[in-house]
Amino acid sequence: MNFWKQHAPELVTDLYEFTMAASYWREKMFEEATFSLFVRDYPPRRAYFVAAGLEPLLETLLDFRMSSSSLEYLESTGIFPGEFLGYLEDLRFTGTVRAMPEGRIFFADEPLLEIDAPIIQGQLVETLVMNALHLDVLAASKAARCVHAAGGRGIVDFSLRRTQGIDAGMKVARCSYMTGFQGTSNVLAGKVYSIPVFGTMAHSYITSFDHEMDAFSTYARTFPDATVLLIDTYDTLSGAEKAVEIARRLEKQGKKLGGVRLDSGDLADLSRKVRRIFRDAGLEDVKILASGGLDEYKVADLLDAGAEIDLIAIGSKLGVSADAPCLDMAYKLVEYKGRPVLKLSPGKRTWVGKKQVFRFHDKDGKMERDILGLDSEDYAEGKPLLERVVVDGRLQRPLESMEAVRRRFAREWESLPEPLRAIRPSCVYPVDASLALEKLEETVASEKEREEIRS
Amino acid sequence: MNFWKQHAPELVTDLYEFTMAASYWREKMFEEATFSLFVRDYPPRRAYFVAAGLEPLLETLLDFRMSSSSLEYLESTGIFPGEFLGYLEDLRFTGTVRAMPEGRIFFADEPLLEIDAPIIQGQLVETLVMNALHLDVLAASKAARCVHAAGGRGIVDFSLRRTQGIDAGMKVARCSYMTGFQGTSNVLAGKVYSIPVFGTMAHSYITSFDHEMDAFSTYARTFPDATVLLIDTYDTLSGAEKAVEIARRLEKQGKKLGGVRLDSGDLADLSRKVRRIFRDAGLEDVKILASGGLDEYKVADLLDAGAEIDLIAIGSKLGVSADAPCLDMAYKLVEYKGRPVLKLSPGKRTWVGKKQVFRFHDKDGKMERDILGLDSEDYAEGKPLLERVVVDGRLQRPLESMEAVRRRFAREWESLPEPLRAIRPSCVYPVDASLALEKLEETVASEKEREEIRS
Repeated sequence: MNFWKQHAPELVTDLYEFTMAASYWREKMFEEATFSLFVRDYPPRRAYFVAAGLEPLLETLLDFRMSSSSLEYLESTGIFPGEFLGYLEDLRFTGTVRAMPEGRIFFADEPLLEIDAPIIQGQLVETLVMNALHLDVLAASKAARCVHAAGGRGIVDFSLRRTQGIDAGMKVARCSYMTGFQGTSNVLAGKVYSIPVFGTMAHSYITSFDHEMDAFSTYARTFPDATVLLIDTYDTLSGAEKAVEIARRLEKQGKKLGGVRLDSGDLADLSRKVRRIFRDAGLEDVKILASGGLDEYKVADLLDAGAEIDLIAIGSKLGVSADAPCLDMAYKLVEYKGRPVLKLSPGKRTWVGKKQVFRFHDKDGKMERDILGLDSEDYAEGKPLLERVVVDGRLQRPLESMEAVRRRFAREWESLPEPLRAIRPSCVYPVDASLALEKLEETVASEKEREEIRS
Repeated sequence: MNFWKQHAPELVTDLYEFTMAASYWREKMFEEATFSLFVRDYPPRRAYFVAAGLEPLLETLLDFRMSSSSLEYLESTGIFPGEFLGYLEDLRFTGTVRAMPEGRIFFADEPLLEIDAPIIQGQLVETLVMNALHLDVLAASKAARCVHAAGGRGIVDFSLRRTQGIDAGMKVARCSYMTGFQGTSNVLAGKVYSIPVFGTMAHSYITSFDHEMDAFSTYARTFPDATVLLIDTYDTLSGAEKAVEIARRLEKQGKKLGGVRLDSGDLADLSRKVRRIFRDAGLEDVKILASGGLDEYKVADLLDAGAEIDLIAIGSKLGVSADAPCLDMAYKLVEYKGRPVLKLSPGKRTWVGKKQVFRFHDKDGKMERDILGLDSEDYAEGKPLLERVVVDGRLQRPLESMEAVRRRFAREWESLPEPLRAIRPSCVYPVDASLALEKLEETVASEKEREEIRS
């Protein structure tokens, strides 16, 4: 794909970031601004979000610079004064990033990240920041739901073939592992993120042999220690009986059949019948893996219907977050030159000012409520969730490892109240604005209404 | 994003492609196989697909090779024999690709692409091929619907911030341009694909000034020849009146206000009121641009409601193909060693054999019906749609330009019958299997049922 070679994160942006920047520059508007990134509302059947995408974003932000090739392209558009392009050439990210670490659970309206930086910097990275976090939050949140639905069974990401691009495939593998997936089929993700990789055979493997049995026995010869047979190519129950024969042959070599995979048909019914075939053959250890159009809803239905499944593979519906493929995520200017700002557009109002999220837990350590307050506020009992991860363009701690993030999510999940974990939640987590924030918001809003709206 | 640096298309694959390849290699299965890629069915409210993604895919395929770093990673998994990895090191793509060119309209069940190659090659590229084409077809098909709904008005892609990754943002910009979008806000896509780029200002620009009027006049000073004012930050109609003042000032310099953008509220009603404000001020030429959560359905509703809109920007709902975020696209082995093969899995049957799609047009040049036949068949009146673009690993023509593809799509669209163009189509395009294909399918299926299913 030729664009990979030409990839330039500084151009992963909407044109208007540059036109606005040019205008700020011309007016000598170099003062500090605060931009706030948050999700406006929950998609249907969602009650929480999982913070994700921060570590890769930080790497990119700290590396921000305009390459000469990018500057040449901007020049070629004929839109920008040459002196402005010279200014861009020296631009680096020197701002502060206050953000929730990856793996944290957060809620609608809460800033996931705020950037305090000279306005041109904060503006130029808008699209990049949103693009970097949007899919990660989406994928991690969807994956957490799948892990929950799987009820302790192993669960693996099989989505790469139908993710929306390669980048997406990488992000989904990483974010699903973060929330408790055992691994992925995605080999590049295995390499880049040190995630365990899984997979054995497709239907094409079976059909390339004259007979299903030939395919099974050939595979077992190649990988006698890791044989998982796909048994639904022609008929699942016939396939299971052939798998029993393979298991017998492996036993003679002192090996065991690892498992079988069911990929079509009535998986609840078939899994019970396949389990019985193995039990009757004394093969209690053979694992049954289910795949094929699964998501958290189907997994829950299968388990409710008594499916006998040990391992679950989730593909496209996780990979594109099919029931909620995008979030109403916004990145808004909330303060400039120390002046809190907002817009009044109907249905799209935002909270003014530099903010902080304070979380309160009950005596059992469960999340009880959050207060959305000003960064300048302080609550003895409330844990502030936004951390200063970058100050003046410098990272304040090493980048976090995947394992550290995975552990954080596991702890967060423990503290998430049971009703909110449900895949069809019936309640909403309480998030309230602090009095100080409410008051500031009202003051600024009424001032703007008075000043800007002509009757 | 660190993975971009380590990007290796040969690892953009599911692990099972490598385990299957290892098993084929061990059994000395080097004969030719045919894999067929198609979409099984239409998502709701879709009646056609647009072929897209071929040119970037071809570049990658022809460049296929295992880097030493990728081989080291595979070795580190401990799964593969060293001799097999040595075999992979020398592997190149030497197969034939028969595919529909980009911009062609195609239908469910029709192969978009078939690959004839030694089975290991055809297998190893499965995930890469699907990932490369899936989103492109999705995005081009969605974009074509948006262009149709816009009814001749200009339409621009604003989706980058919420596409599922950067790769997706690039693909959406490219594929929407292919189907008639005027351009994109995505600067990198503008650079890489030579697509016109659009954009002026966000709400953050407006709110960074003490007053909306200051923001407007500053922008007009910076870009007097290309001023489009976002007027909904505080109140759309007040914003429109301020825009009239800006237009007056520009007139004094011999310049014209380009347009205004509405991004929230009742766009049909507001656009009419804003138009009247401009008309009453003698500003007939000011363009009205609408944005904010639009898709083909909302655009159609707006225009039905008499919205006065000249330009339309489509964002997230195009970017993630929100109402149909994935397709049931499959890549299946259909022939090996000259033997046609299929699977019988319920709900997932495939058509056997090397195939061709023959298209018949009526006397007015409109598409009338397609026949899904065998590659060996021939129809005097039927135009074969799959072209041999790669033979024995060699490209048979130069890569196509964006403009050539754009022209092809425009011609295809002209020949698509009106009822199928509708955003809520009420009919299905007729695609029939040829008698020869039907017969072959039945023969192979009944043979497999007899051989493989134990009663």
